[in-house]
Amino acid sequence: MELETEKEPAEKAGKEREQVRVFAPATAANLVCGFDILGLALEQPGDEVMMKRSDKSGVRLLKITGDDGRLPLDPAKNTVSACVQMLLKHLGREDIGVEIALHKQMPIGSGLGSSAASTVAGLYAINLLLGEPLSKHELLPFAMRGEELACGHGHADNVAPSLFGGITLIKSYEPLDVIQLPIPKDLYCSVVFPHVDVPTRAARQMIRSKIDLKDAVIQWGNIAGLVSGFFMNDHALIGRSMKDVLIEPTRAILIPEFYEMREQAMVSGALGFGISGSGPSVFAFASSKQTALNITNNIVQHLQSKGIDSNGYVSAINEQGPREL
Amino acid sequence: MELETEKEPAEKAGKEREQVRVFAPATAANLVCGFDILGLALEQPGDEVMMKRSDKSGVRLLKITGDDGRLPLDPAKNTVSACVQMLLKHLGREDIGVEIALHKQMPIGSGLGSSAASTVAGLYAINLLLGEPLSKHELLPFAMRGEELACGHGHADNVAPSLFGGITLIKSYEPLDVIQLPIPKDLYCSVVFPHVDVPTRAARQMIRSKIDLKDAVIQWGNIAGLVSGFFMNDHALIGRSMKDVLIEPTRAILIPEFYEMREQAMVSGALGFGISGSGPSVFAFASSKQTALNITNNIVQHLQSKGIDSNGYVSAINEQGPREL
Repeated sequence: MELETEKEPAEKAGKEREQVRVFAPATAANLVCGFDILGLALEQPGDEVMMKRSDKSGVRLLKITGDDGRLPLDPAKNTVSACVQMLLKHLGREDIGVEIALHKQMPIGSGLGSSAASTVAGLYAINLLLGEPLSKHELLPFAMRGEELACGHGHADNVAPSLFGGITLIKSYEPLDVIQLPIPKDLYCSVVFPHVDVPTRAARQMIRSKIDLKDAVIQWGNIAGLVSGFFMNDHALIGRSMKDVLIEPTRAILIPEFYEMREQAMVSGALGFGISGSGPSVFAFASSKQTALNITNNIVQHLQSKGIDSNGYVSAINEQGPREL
Repeated sequence: MELETEKEPAEKAGKEREQVRVFAPATAANLVCGFDILGLALEQPGDEVMMKRSDKSGVRLLKITGDDGRLPLDPAKNTVSACVQMLLKHLGREDIGVEIALHKQMPIGSGLGSSAASTVAGLYAINLLLGEPLSKHELLPFAMRGEELACGHGHADNVAPSLFGGITLIKSYEPLDVIQLPIPKDLYCSVVFPHVDVPTRAARQMIRSKIDLKDAVIQWGNIAGLVSGFFMNDHALIGRSMKDVLIEPTRAILIPEFYEMREQAMVSGALGFGISGSGPSVFAFASSKQTALNITNNIVQHLQSKGIDSNGYVSAINEQGPREL
């Protein structure tokens, strides 16, 4: 019993570092039917954080590139630096000095977990810098507080997959219970971000708070089917479970050409198709890299024919989460 | 192409039989969180059907035992004989004569799939009698029509597990898509049927048709967790996923001593506890046969102390479904 009263050192074993450079991946949340509980990490795009020690204490955000001036440089307001500050406070290490450069290599407000990728890169970097005092599991609550700051809602369906890699199930929030699902073999992601503006907060607010029980039963049948499909490595089951009768009909209104993009995806061989996160990015699974490439190209070309620019991505599922560069 | 126009014979290969005796298992539907989509088959209790050919054409229900006179002997109204008639009509075999005796070995209106067990036993028996012209998968729609006749709702969460055995996921109804989930090792079921009357139709009607999206998200997180737990053979995850925030609060009102039974189950070592189907039977998972026995005994004794008689069962998960005796 006496052992329990001993003060736990703030930092566990590990060599502290002078500087690190970290990549954290973009994510596709919901996976069509799993609103607020499912997400996966992409190989690309993602964000990059450079972090180095400084003699002057405090957290400074020196530079942000790739954001078109849209993100705040105030360290208390930017989710990357704010989360680093929170972590240092938690560890009792507010004495140290940290300088951060954030290189955004993915679109903001895209439904691909842009804030999550930055936040996770920052938290992973500061943890490396301090000799890894915390596990990924222990970093997660800080990342969720970053999401609250960035999106007004401390959800985990982007930060958890970005942090852990692979496909994650947020089984519950109270208590926080994240389950790592298996990654099916030869499953590829096609992602397209159309350049139309769909603010995350607005997209969330449009969703009805009351739903029909019979629709919920359809939805959770699909969720159970999708999760089973991941475990069974059954691409056909994955595909026929990717249906959203609850959220998509509302959110799709905000996304021009949504149903035409679906048509393009399905005729190009997609297993299933839907909105990534709160959109406007769209997401499809495919059983080969070539099929995913065809889907992405055909959607991008369709959008182009309608005068809408877009970014197209083809990606395997990222198994690792953040990595040092 | 010409091959496709050839008439498929109504019956595939298989030797016809003179008489058969079949057992079909009781089932626990919903598995607490999976309303209308999950169910499992028990080793016991269950129902027994004796079926034999007769020279006089038509389906006759000669005898029912164990029903306290509650079930109709009219072959058109009893779910067993009515489903046999439907099947014979489908196969163009209404010319033959069939005599049925139904031995109910489980309580009616218990929430343990009493009508499903009888229906599945009857359909499995007639299929054997005819040399197995149909697969189990092909029998399922007939069993669902039996449920519609018996309960006013053609659901599959009792008939599918009774027919296929194991743990079944009704992924969707339109189209009907049933997925067999893996059976975790060393998982035992404790089931208690308190002798209180909760009609299935009334229990269904009490459920609200509109629910909060936030509650639905909690529910489908638990469903995804439970399904993952089955695949991962993770008893702890199974247990902490067995929560129902939507249906149980309403249905529990109809079941005297429900929360006291839960308390008994949990202190006896249950992984999780809830209502079986629409009740009043209650259901718990346990990690050993002895623990399941303790749970059942303690609940039965608690009910006894409150003047409520009950039937208690301890059962492994039935892997086979119906079987010939």
